[in-house]
This record gives sequence, structure tokens and C-alpha cells, in this order.
Amino acid sequence: MIIAVDAMGGDHAPKEIVHGVMKAVQEDVTLTVKLYGNEKQINEHLTPSSQIEVIHTEEKILSTDEPVRAVRRKKNASMVLMAQAVKDGEADACVSAGNTGALMASGLFVVGRIKGIDRPALSPTLPTLDGQGFVMLDLGANADAKPEHLLQYAVMGSIYAEQVRNISRPTVGLLNIGTEEGKGNELTKQAYDLLQQSGLNFIGNVESRDLLNGVADVVVTDGFTGNMVLKTIEGTAQALFGMIKDTFTSSVKNKLAAGLVKNDMRQLKNKMDYTEYGGAGLFGLNAPVVKAHGSSNANALYNAIKQANTMAKHDVCGKISDSISLADQANQ
Amino acid sequence: MIIAVDAMGGDHAPKEIVHGVMKAVQEDVTLTVKLYGNEKQINEHLTPSSQIEVIHTEEKILSTDEPVRAVRRKKNASMVLMAQAVKDGEADACVSAGNTGALMASGLFVVGRIKGIDRPALSPTLPTLDGQGFVMLDLGANADAKPEHLLQYAVMGSIYAEQVRNISRPTVGLLNIGTEEGKGNELTKQAYDLLQQSGLNFIGNVESRDLLNGVADVVVTDGFTGNMVLKTIEGTAQALFGMIKDTFTSSVKNKLAAGLVKNDMRQLKNKMDYTEYGGAGLFGLNAPVVKAHGSSNANALYNAIKQANTMAKHDVCGKISDSISLADQANQ
Repeated sequence: MIIAVDAMGGDHAPKEIVHGVMKAVQEDVTLTVKLYGNEKQINEHLTPSSQIEVIHTEEKILSTDEPVRAVRRKKNASMVLMAQAVKDGEADACVSAGNTGALMASGLFVVGRIKGIDRPALSPTLPTLDGQGFVMLDLGANADAKPEHLLQYAVMGSIYAEQVRNISRPTVGLLNIGTEEGKGNELTKQAYDLLQQSGLNFIGNVESRDLLNGVADVVVTDGFTGNMVLKTIEGTAQALFGMIKDTFTSSVKNKLAAGLVKNDMRQLKNKMDYTEYGGAGLFGLNAPVVKAHGSSNANALYNAIKQANTMAKHDVCGKISDSISLADQANQ
Repeated sequence: MIIAVDAMGGDHAPKEIVHGVMKAVQEDVTLTVKLYGNEKQINEHLTPSSQIEVIHTEEKILSTDEPVRAVRRKKNASMVLMAQAVKDGEADACVSAGNTGALMASGLFVVGRIKGIDRPALSPTLPTLDGQGFVMLDLGANADAKPEHLLQYAVMGSIYAEQVRNISRPTVGLLNIGTEEGKGNELTKQAYDLLQQSGLNFIGNVESRDLLNGVADVVVTDGFTGNMVLKTIEGTAQALFGMIKDTFTSSVKNKLAAGLVKNDMRQLKNKMDYTEYGGAGLFGLNAPVVKAHGSSNANALYNAIKQANTMAKHDVCGKISDSISLADQANQ
């Protein structure tokens, strides 16, 4: 497999990106990486390898750039060239830790949508307390969604869970404000009916408070709600860990206690670290496009490459395309 | 003021309800409470007082009852009689810790909506790290909302914050998935424009991760999103506190540490305790209707009664009615 990687995206680019790429090719001799970005900056960190090809470009997309405009105007940006390589068949998949909106625009305008998919979805694997994790989509590629989109998200998430995460007949939950049938807003009520008739392993409504307990293998929701819930979990965890830290440093006695539990508390924090699960796939495009977290270190990027590689190997995009066209035929 | 109270609603009824009522009348000699429920069970906990009148009824609404049906059929339920007292002018406001849906139905069908208000909103005061708290609405009275409803929520929340929480020119934030103008779904984009033209102290979009930091005095959102965010905060906090508890009991060394920080950690948990802020007002009805938390103890119920009393004293419902009819006139 050939994976195209944007060397210039993310808070720690290109250093951590380059280190992640080196780790990935070391672990998999069948893997080739095309690395797009400033050659001089890349070479400061790169140990040359026959599996890594560096393609030089001066241009890059900034995290502050307006996404659609940046992708349209900066034709030679590392991210755009990376997407173009996939489009042209020079790479099987691509990975970037850069501007999320710009990567979505690159996916839509350069890599292209699967026929029959109305809306690609941002689909990370999120952590659970038991370490299994679950796929949730859409996390914000499209703020508004119709019931049919939620059904497509469920199909795409199920194929991914089966092919990449090795879960047979993955359970699908609909994120809602109550577990009973008939709960929710117009969108979830209508999506419930579609999911129940879908032939997927639909287990009904799931509540956000049960997400961390691994209530379903695939959880579907509209991008507005998904993004809201993700940010709420992050915000609440951050606020609580901040308060705990304040408590632990507020007195000599508490500092002593902190010293005793420090390592175990760090482990607890690591449990919630989703970089271990790879990046967020952009499902519904013609090839695997993976968004690594903006603050990705080498290990997070390594995991994102592995994820893109597995998606390509198992032809996840082809299988999504087959499922969607089958469903379309059945509806005609 | 005369406050009608449902003695039979909530996990700890009637004991904690009765104790809360006794505390409220002790603290305020001008207050009279009409207490609806099973007289025999109430009297087991009640120290008789000239300020408390017990109105006996055998019927009550259960937490498992289907709300609308229960309110329509159980005409003599303690909650329905309590609402009827307000409707008939025998009480100025009412408080229940019972079935939330049934209390909303009692509010709508018995107490009645303010003319011009399309949707009443469930509006609790939520905790912030600095102890100030903020009003958030709607938390789930109506799953779907239109932009105009969010504007009405902002008007109602602002009047409440001003009259009951003593905040002059309270800031109003629109809950969204980004702070920049133009972010969000169709609903929030349109609501943004309405709020900006409203004359309220609108500060723009606010994100869920900043709620605990007290980013605005009033935060408006549709009931689906509001309920989802509230449950996500609760779920995440619960999961994290659970994990911390596990860590603290996992070894002798950690148990020792737990002993040292126990009191401070409990204080931290209390900070997040929203029963201190009273109950959730149902804004948009003809009289104050306050929903106390289902797990209310005496203190939570006392606070809810105080809140209903203050709302009645400051004629919050009359002021909401005036604002809405003024806005309606301006639009004609």
C-alpha cells in the first residue's frame, strides 16, 4: 500500500509527523509513504528510507485559513497535493493532522464522494472505559442532517467496525435524549424507523452518558449534536482534572497525597487518550482520508497511518460504495 | 405569598418534601404553603404550623406514568391539585419534585401558557466553578425549536436573571459548536441574527466546554441539544469520579492518599451540586412552576420553594408577558 501524508499539518509538524512516518514504515515493510511538504524541514528529522519518498512543496494550509478558500487557492499546498495523489491513483489513502475543515474540503473537492453518499462524515474512534472504543459519526463534517444521512452513517460505520476493528455484526446505536422508542426530536424519531428497517444490528436509542461505558460499537448522530457532545466530554473532563490538580496542590498534606497516587492518576488520564485509537476517518469518500488530531505526536500519527493502511487493505471505501448502490437499487 | 407544593413527588417523598417545607416557613414568616398529598404519610414527618395547610388526596402521579395521560386521567393527583390551586388563584406559585413530563403537562394544561409564548422552557440554574451559576434553557421541555423560540428563551432567561438572580443586563450566549459568527446548523445561524437584533445583552455563540467557566449569565439552546449537553456533563463527571474512586481504593498506598484529600475532594464534588441553586423553572407559564430534582433532599426542596417565592414576589411571569406582548406589537 502507498499512503500519502501531509508533513506540514498539525501543531508539531513536521517533526512528529516525520517520526510517525518512520515508525510506520519500520513496522510494515510492504508500506510506502509519499511525504508532502518542505523538504529541508522534513530532512532535519528524517532518516532516509527506500520506503519514504519526499515530495517538496513550499505552500501549506494554516490552521487559521478559511478551509474551502484555502483548498481552492493553494493548489500546491502539501495537503492538497497529498489528496491529489490519491485522486490520481498514485496513493491508496492519505493522512493529515492539519486544518480539519480544509481536509474535509480536500476530501470533497479533490478525492471526491462515493456515488450515492450525500454527506461524508467525520468518524473518530472514541475511548471507552474498557479500552475497546467505539466509532461515532458524524462528529461535525455537516452540521445539519436528514434521517437518510443518519442511515448512511450507520452503514458506513458498520462496515468500518467490521473490516477495520474486526467486530462481527457490530451494534449500532442512535444517540438520543432517552432510550425509549419515540423519544427525541423529529430527526431522531424518523431516523429510528429507518434504522429499524435497515437490516443493520440496530439496538435502538443510546444516551450520551453511556457512551464511555461502550454502549454500542457504532453510534450515529447529526454533526451538530456529535460535535457538541464531543466538546462537552472534553470540556467536562478538562475542568474536572483541572479542579483535581488544584486540590492536589492546595496544601502540603494534599501534595503528599498527590505524590502517592500520581502514577495511577496518570494512567487514568491515558485511558481517555484517543490518539491510541488512530485518527478520525472521513467516511463516504472514494478513498480513505484520515484526520489525525491537531496535537498529534509521532505515536498518534503512526496509529493514523496504520488505520488508513488497514482501511485501504480491506477496501472499506469499495465496500461502502457497494452497500450504498445495493440500497439504492432496492429503493428503486 | 402562598406556594402550593406536591408532597408526593420525588425519590424521597413525602419525608424530605415535608422537611423542606418546614424549613421554608420557619425562615419566612410571610410564607404560607399548601401541601398536597396523603395526609397520614405527611403527618408522620410534619410539625404542625399555622403557615402550612395540608390538603389530603389519595391519588399521585408515579415517575413511571406516561405524563400527558397521567395528568388527564388522575384529576385528583397531588401534582394536578397543586397546579389547579395556582390556576384558581389559591396559590401564587407551585413546586414539585415529581415526574418532569407530568409537571410540564400540568403546567401547560392546568396553569396555562403566557399569551404569545409558543413553547415553555425547562430552565435550571446550573453550577459554574466560581459558584455563580447560570440559567440555561431549554433543557428538554420541547425537543424541536425554531429560531423565534430561542429568542423567546433569551427574553425569559434575561428577565429571570435580572429579577431573581439580581444580575443587571445579564449576558446572553447562544450554545453552538464554535464561537465565530456563521458557525452551527440552520437553527443556530438564524437564531444568531434574531438575538443580535433583539436589544438583549447578546454576546454571541458560546461553546459547551466553557459552560462550567461561567461564559454567560443566560445560555439558550433547543431542548434536544440542551438535554443532551446536560446529560453528557453529568455522565462524564460521574464516570470520572467513579474512575477516581476506583484508583483511590486500588492499593494501600492509594487508600492512604485518599484519606488525606477526602474532605477537599468532597468539597469539589459539592461545588458541582446544583440543588444549591434551587430547581428548574418552567418559564413561559402564567405562574411560577418549579421542578425540584427527583432526588431532592429537604435542602433542595427548601431552595426550590425560595426560588418559586422570589419569582412570584418579583412577578417574573407578568414581566415576561409584558415583554412578549411588547415584542409582538413591535412586529405588527
